[in-house]
Amino acid sequence: MSDADDALVVFTPSGRRGRVPLGTPVLEAARALGVDIDSVCGGRGLCGRCQVDLCEGSFPKHGVESRAAHLSAKCDTERTWERRRGALCEGRRLSCSARVLGDALIDVPPASQVHRQVVRKRAEVRDIELDPSVRLYFVQVREPDLQVPASDLRRLKEALACEWHFGSLEHDIRVVQQLQEALRRGHWGVTVAIYDNTRIIAVWPGFQAQVYGMAVDVGSTTLAAHLCNLQTGEVVATAGRMNPQIRYGEDLMSRISFIMMNPGGEQAMTRSVREALNELTVELASEAGVPVEAILEATFVGNPIMHSLMFGINPVELGGAPFALATDEAIDGLWATEMDLVIHPNARVYGLPCIAGHVGADTAGAILSETPYLGEELMLLVDVGTNAEIVLGNRHRLLAASSPTGPAFEGAQISCGQRAAPGAIERVRIDPLTLEPRFKVIGCDLWSDEPGFDTAIGPCGVTGVCGSGIIEAIAELFLAGVITPDGVVSGALAEQTPRVVADGRTFSYVLYREAARTLAITQNDIRAIQLAKAALYAGIRLLMERYGTDHVERIRLAGAFGAHIDVQYAMILGLIPDCDLDHVTSAGNAAGTGARIALLSRKARRDIEDVVRRVEKVETATEPHFQAHFVEAMAIPHRSDPFPRLRERVSLPVSDHAASRRGTGRRRRRQRQPG
Amino acid sequence: MSDADDALVVFTPSGRRGRVPLGTPVLEAARALGVDIDSVCGGRGLCGRCQVDLCEGSFPKHGVESRAAHLSAKCDTERTWERRRGALCEGRRLSCSARVLGDALIDVPPASQVHRQVVRKRAEVRDIELDPSVRLYFVQVREPDLQVPASDLRRLKEALACEWHFGSLEHDIRVVQQLQEALRRGHWGVTVAIYDNTRIIAVWPGFQAQVYGMAVDVGSTTLAAHLCNLQTGEVVATAGRMNPQIRYGEDLMSRISFIMMNPGGEQAMTRSVREALNELTVELASEAGVPVEAILEATFVGNPIMHSLMFGINPVELGGAPFALATDEAIDGLWATEMDLVIHPNARVYGLPCIAGHVGADTAGAILSETPYLGEELMLLVDVGTNAEIVLGNRHRLLAASSPTGPAFEGAQISCGQRAAPGAIERVRIDPLTLEPRFKVIGCDLWSDEPGFDTAIGPCGVTGVCGSGIIEAIAELFLAGVITPDGVVSGALAEQTPRVVADGRTFSYVLYREAARTLAITQNDIRAIQLAKAALYAGIRLLMERYGTDHVERIRLAGAFGAHIDVQYAMILGLIPDCDLDHVTSAGNAAGTGARIALLSRKARRDIEDVVRRVEKVETATEPHFQAHFVEAMAIPHRSDPFPRLRERVSLPVSDHAASRRGTGRRRRRQRQPG
Repeated sequence: MSDADDALVVFTPSGRRGRVPLGTPVLEAARALGVDIDSVCGGRGLCGRCQVDLCEGSFPKHGVESRAAHLSAKCDTERTWERRRGALCEGRRLSCSARVLGDALIDVPPASQVHRQVVRKRAEVRDIELDPSVRLYFVQVREPDLQVPASDLRRLKEALACEWHFGSLEHDIRVVQQLQEALRRGHWGVTVAIYDNTRIIAVWPGFQAQVYGMAVDVGSTTLAAHLCNLQTGEVVATAGRMNPQIRYGEDLMSRISFIMMNPGGEQAMTRSVREALNELTVELASEAGVPVEAILEATFVGNPIMHSLMFGINPVELGGAPFALATDEAIDGLWATEMDLVIHPNARVYGLPCIAGHVGADTAGAILSETPYLGEELMLLVDVGTNAEIVLGNRHRLLAASSPTGPAFEGAQISCGQRAAPGAIERVRIDPLTLEPRFKVIGCDLWSDEPGFDTAIGPCGVTGVCGSGIIEAIAELFLAGVITPDGVVSGALAEQTPRVVADGRTFSYVLYREAARTLAITQNDIRAIQLAKAALYAGIRLLMERYGTDHVERIRLAGAFGAHIDVQYAMILGLIPDCDLDHVTSAGNAAGTGARIALLSRKARRDIEDVVRRVEKVETATEPHFQAHFVEAMAIPHRSDPFPRLRERVSLPVSDHAASRRGTGRRRRRQRQPG
Repeated sequence: MSDADDALVVFTPSGRRGRVPLGTPVLEAARALGVDIDSVCGGRGLCGRCQVDLCEGSFPKHGVESRAAHLSAKCDTERTWERRRGALCEGRRLSCSARVLGDALIDVPPASQVHRQVVRKRAEVRDIELDPSVRLYFVQVREPDLQVPASDLRRLKEALACEWHFGSLEHDIRVVQQLQEALRRGHWGVTVAIYDNTRIIAVWPGFQAQVYGMAVDVGSTTLAAHLCNLQTGEVVATAGRMNPQIRYGEDLMSRISFIMMNPGGEQAMTRSVREALNELTVELASEAGVPVEAILEATFVGNPIMHSLMFGINPVELGGAPFALATDEAIDGLWATEMDLVIHPNARVYGLPCIAGHVGADTAGAILSETPYLGEELMLLVDVGTNAEIVLGNRHRLLAASSPTGPAFEGAQISCGQRAAPGAIERVRIDPLTLEPRFKVIGCDLWSDEPGFDTAIGPCGVTGVCGSGIIEAIAELFLAGVITPDGVVSGALAEQTPRVVADGRTFSYVLYREAARTLAITQNDIRAIQLAKAALYAGIRLLMERYGTDHVERIRLAGAFGAHIDVQYAMILGLIPDCDLDHVTSAGNAAGTGARIALLSRKARRDIEDVVRRVEKVETATEPHFQAHFVEAMAIPHRSDPFPRLRERVSLPVSDHAASRRGTGRRRRRQRQPG
């Protein structure tokens, strides 16, 4: 130990260092040196958030001899905390209680850092720096004094200025209404929630340890929500439920129609979605063992119509051209009570901004999650639903459009189509020689040609084909030569295989047949998928043209469709442009992740608000080139685009056009179809 | 007319001048030259607020030859406006329609100035410069365009930036919820209300001409409210009603007791006062022929307990030491719906700040009205109620205190006392020779010794004595020598006059006697008044002592008591310190006037917030000198203060002390009582 009256303290991982007087609490030393250590209780040994590790030994790199004896022994406060919350590991101390008695190397573990990184599972995306809007602060407030009259609020603000260095703070009237009782019940110690470093929005008597937030993805079909601990970024509960608006219409347009036919219907829809969300909230809170009043923030994403209805805006204008949004700004700092939410009444709500009439806050969420705006790489981000939202760009430029794919990719408009649910065929392979299929159904790990499949699929059996199953079936039929690049089922094959059957003037391919049920891919089914994929591809192509490129470097497929689809088949069918297949991946529920990022990071909110403002909106409906792109994209994979990277991996049948140009196509295709 | 392609325009009263191109609309010229002309419609000839007068003639002082022909002839817009709203006077024009065709001298009448002065009736107070928080702006918004997608809100803000030069504006979510319908119903023309130049708080389709505000004084006994046109400052309706909280207790302390005995009682009281206010609001609006939704602002004053209950704050802490206020800041920008008010749901509420636990927002209002903080003169401002609020100071220093006078001045605790109402004696004179009284009652112009009095007072007759009557009665009794400076009714006089009668061990003075009713001033009544006035005077003296003065230059008496009392009698009794009587005047309902000033002027709000922060709060209850001052002040007018200025006007009986010092007092007094 040094003989001096001060000592050297070095903090890792920051590397900050300096001499402090002997006896200084480690937390105070850290603050003096600008080291980031969390604390809610302000160094009173209540919250336990300021834990640090003393590193024992010689550290020539840091020039410090660090010994256990260089920190004071555990004091009563620390022991009391351990009795209440469990013993600290060897070498770990509450930095507010441990005092510096000599040179020391002190490590601040991630959990004790205010601005810690929230680790995301996928390797390709950045971690989030935790920086929530709402933070808790415990303060001990001076008692009122008849001689020096100052209101309770004034003395609270003085305490916050003195202990936490808040300059001038605003406050909600509701805090004033609750303050006096809280101060007296807490014996002048209260915990306050401060929003955005500027405004006191809640107060509790005594020490309140935890604060939560909720990230909500309002889909047309489902509501999905994460409950997060705002101090750790951790997701403590996740839940979903159907959007009860479905009773007003399955898809968005039928809901708009309902409103147009039933004035005031928008209010009923707003009520119903908010009620469902409140049920979901209670479920989340109960799952996590947290009172709903501990939820101080909520963030929302949704397509423009869901977003409008959630925020009480009539969406009828989004039902027709010119598709004017009420607002394309973020909805910021709204009181939860304005939305009738059951969380803390003073909680704040943040809605990510919508981008355009057809490109919603869900797309903004996906952009925030996938961050195309940060890199040099040209990224294509696609979220396929009833409409496909398409984003293309990089840090220099970002374009967005929506393309009316219709619901075919979700199994609607398909004769054998169904939602992705147990019993639905999701994977399909077709033998190019025998033209016989094999497949997998959701809820069963076996392929249909494996032993035990019939029993493994259970009594319900095979019930239909979901979106990814249809994509694979059609792509495999194309690879096997059953359908032409123009999408026509070759009737000639009916002679070679009982799978190809006449269906009026066209032909179908029978994927599955049993006593009760026949599942066939009809010519109409193929047309429906062609129309959908042509719309998607044309939209993408339009953005690429606008950007001035004919090649994208990375493709991210967001949403449930993107998560279930096999990207190779998607590319064979020509849903997406040619790209190195290793660079084509699912982004999961990127919109929901965006909502969660916005919940955890104020900076992310400002980022996405800036980005959305810069996005170039492209209206596919009125773009003259769209129609030409659409027609070209009807072919499988495409009438003119060569897909060279795909061809390196997959041997595609030669297209009619290419074949006729080369004069060999038809023959070659026939050669590949030897029954 | 000049041959040049521009012309000289001179505006009065500002004197601003400059050359503008021929053909420039006068409104545009005015704006270019920084002349203050009002407009809501932005120069579209809708609002008629921009009227100006062309001054015809030669004006060598301004160097201008101004002719009628130097403005363009009336155009269709102007004629349409005249058809709708009535012909403009000779020479008067809509400045948005009249164009400059030659040199012109143009007068902007007060009604056309944005920052016009609101004239106050009393000579001694300053006019208010009109500058309300809420102002209306009409804009024509660009229609939505599929090619250039921008939300309705964004295009609205663009229009506000372009037409009215608003930079970045915030907005209420409710505006977003109403915007799309308003724009379409108004054919893309909407009027918005902008709060504090920073936030859009309401939107209406088309042109909306008028916006109102409400100033409310929440008294323990009565609610009083003014409805004001925020564009002119004019009071368009005034109304009052009982505070229904009276059912929970007559005075403040009994209401606090009710809450302490009935948990939740504060909520019932909050509800009841808000309901009464809403009834009052409907009455005001209907009287003025204005829809309640046109009321976009409300300001409030009240004593700390009324203020708390109105704003939903439990006032129990104000019921006992240390009398801690929940907040001593202004309540600013609160949504009307947070207070369940029936005015426009997006209206904003402003509550003037309370100063200390016993010195409320009503005192802040009185300070704002009387502006002691502006002058050099040392002003004493007193508002007498159950407590007396006392403010002393000038621009250098301001002190405030509350003194517990009790309700005696309001006629309570007085045997013959009653509220100021028809039938109550309000003026009293006592003949020093005969000791016979004469008096006036409220509701009758005749003195009691004038012919016809008995019939003029009507069937109810004389029912009691109100506060000002008691003050006068006791002061006259003192002047007539019936009571000593110590406040004792001289029993010896019972031999000289039947008016003085024994009442147990003390004596009373019979002011009025008829078959049904005897009204007498008892010894107890006099004691009650002495206690009250001693408390008031001691509080004043304490502030004077703290300030370091023994003389005030001006005394302003606020409230109903101040309006009815004869200041000379108040001084004779020693309620207020010696002062030139010409400088002692009633301030009327200064608190309510303060609320109205805060309604009309943003600057006034900032002023009073600053002033209140600077006020030195003096707590009379714990001040050691208070008791000594109190004892001295029990005497009439005072045991030791000489009241030289009063004595110049009124011959006061020599006090016992002074008399005994001079050895002549008793004799002299006896000489003045010759029955």
